[in-house]
Amino acid sequence: MFKRIVICGAGLIGGSFALALKAAGAVETVVGIGRSTATLEEARALGILDEIATDWAVALKGADLLLLAVPVGQMGVVMAAAAPYLEAQTLVTDGGSTKADVFEAAYTYLKSHLGNVVPAHPIAGAEKSGPAAAFADLYQGKRVVLTPLPESSAEAVARVEAAWARCGAQVCRMSPHDHDRVFAAVSHLPHLLAFGLVHDIQGRANAEQLFSFAASGFRDFTRIAGSHPEMWRDICVANRQALLAELDAYLAELAYLRALLVQGDGPALENHFAQASAARNAWAEKYLR
Amino acid sequence: MFKRIVICGAGLIGGSFALALKAAGAVETVVGIGRSTATLEEARALGILDEIATDWAVALKGADLLLLAVPVGQMGVVMAAAAPYLEAQTLVTDGGSTKADVFEAAYTYLKSHLGNVVPAHPIAGAEKSGPAAAFADLYQGKRVVLTPLPESSAEAVARVEAAWARCGAQVCRMSPHDHDRVFAAVSHLPHLLAFGLVHDIQGRANAEQLFSFAASGFRDFTRIAGSHPEMWRDICVANRQALLAELDAYLAELAYLRALLVQGDGPALENHFAQASAARNAWAEKYLR
Repeated sequence: MFKRIVICGAGLIGGSFALALKAAGAVETVVGIGRSTATLEEARALGILDEIATDWAVALKGADLLLLAVPVGQMGVVMAAAAPYLEAQTLVTDGGSTKADVFEAAYTYLKSHLGNVVPAHPIAGAEKSGPAAAFADLYQGKRVVLTPLPESSAEAVARVEAAWARCGAQVCRMSPHDHDRVFAAVSHLPHLLAFGLVHDIQGRANAEQLFSFAASGFRDFTRIAGSHPEMWRDICVANRQALLAELDAYLAELAYLRALLVQGDGPALENHFAQASAARNAWAEKYLR
Repeated sequence: MFKRIVICGAGLIGGSFALALKAAGAVETVVGIGRSTATLEEARALGILDEIATDWAVALKGADLLLLAVPVGQMGVVMAAAAPYLEAQTLVTDGGSTKADVFEAAYTYLKSHLGNVVPAHPIAGAEKSGPAAAFADLYQGKRVVLTPLPESSAEAVARVEAAWARCGAQVCRMSPHDHDRVFAAVSHLPHLLAFGLVHDIQGRANAEQLFSFAASGFRDFTRIAGSHPEMWRDICVANRQALLAELDAYLAELAYLRALLVQGDGPALENHFAQASAARNAWAEKYLR
């Protein structure tokens, strides 16, 4: 499928993409480039990378595809650096969790290459990051949202879609605006809330006591608070309009729950919890089987 | 250890207590009593109960121990009903997630029996409830917090402690006030927040779309939103003072995060997330191994 692909950022997302394509026999050579030499060396030792490049001219020579798997705040800088060396055939996709900002960066830095740019968001995270967290099956059965540009060529979209599909993913398409609103609600807000809860507790005088009694509910609720701070900083900044809208809707929800608590209104609390519980269990029934 | 124990409420907590003591060979006969005949019949069919009692006089005849494993809002009613039939030797413990209200109910309804009353909170939940969710190992390695009354006799405390220890639990002691504050922070607030998030999303016009893109972060964050509505209604009402204090601290946290988002203050967001992430990962390192 590909003779040579370049991964910028050989962490969980980039590393798993490389391992998945290798496992599928869909790539001959995987070249890594990135800001941390130690990370790239680790990725090579783990069999994720075949070559490490220290400059873009060497990396992109003869490349069929470039995957940008860096925190979204880095996309612009990376695109600017790569742009002069993109060849006519080189496809560009990414693994960023926000898409409107990736659009903006592409229009700014990849102007003459837009036909080959097909932004993507693989819905497959983990609270662990780095090359050691990568594995070939990460995308197996997971969704990948493509948000093609109006300028993306049909052939480029088809090839990028096929690449993600070869990783085992179910690929769908969305506008970047819809994408960013959906993920603000079901991903970005929960991350913000989990970070907030752990931050709140860790700053208490009795934090050790509190943590010592935290059980499985706390464990699962806060799992995503162990996520990569820089990655989530970038997502929150990039998607802050949609995230603020979601946060405000949630604050209204909490204000209502607070009023029910103040009033000790058991029936209304139960009704509220019952609606949530039924919806959560129906979701689990449909999507977790 | 016990010839006859009585379980009021043969769900996850009561059923697992019975199964654990049976597995340990620590009880001869387990008698069930409760408001739902169907639940009791199911528990007997599952081997949790040996007998079903329809009145308290029969249930408590010769009983060594009574476990109250009902939603905390029912504790008073159940204590009032059981009180006239408690024998001199009958120990009383419970599985309620709040303790100040159980204290209050004991002082109101079990006045002449306080020496034998030893309230407890097993820190072992699950989002599933009912007898079918019960299993003998639920308490294995889990903590159980005893909150003895000043009136509880040393012997009663020792025997109740031994009963929970035979279930495999690590037993510790706390005041009910401290207990309720700790669990408001690490358990009750996260439940409220998870219920709130799912309630918020399920009420949207595009709820189906949102749910279809919810992934593992959402799955874990909202697992506890599948919990039993009545049980959590009772916990929230019983512990609303401490829960409101926690909710308000959390709302202040969210107000701060909101300001950082409005300002697009990346460094401050990253710093905040990094503190949370480090604390969460340190907690996991210490408690999840």
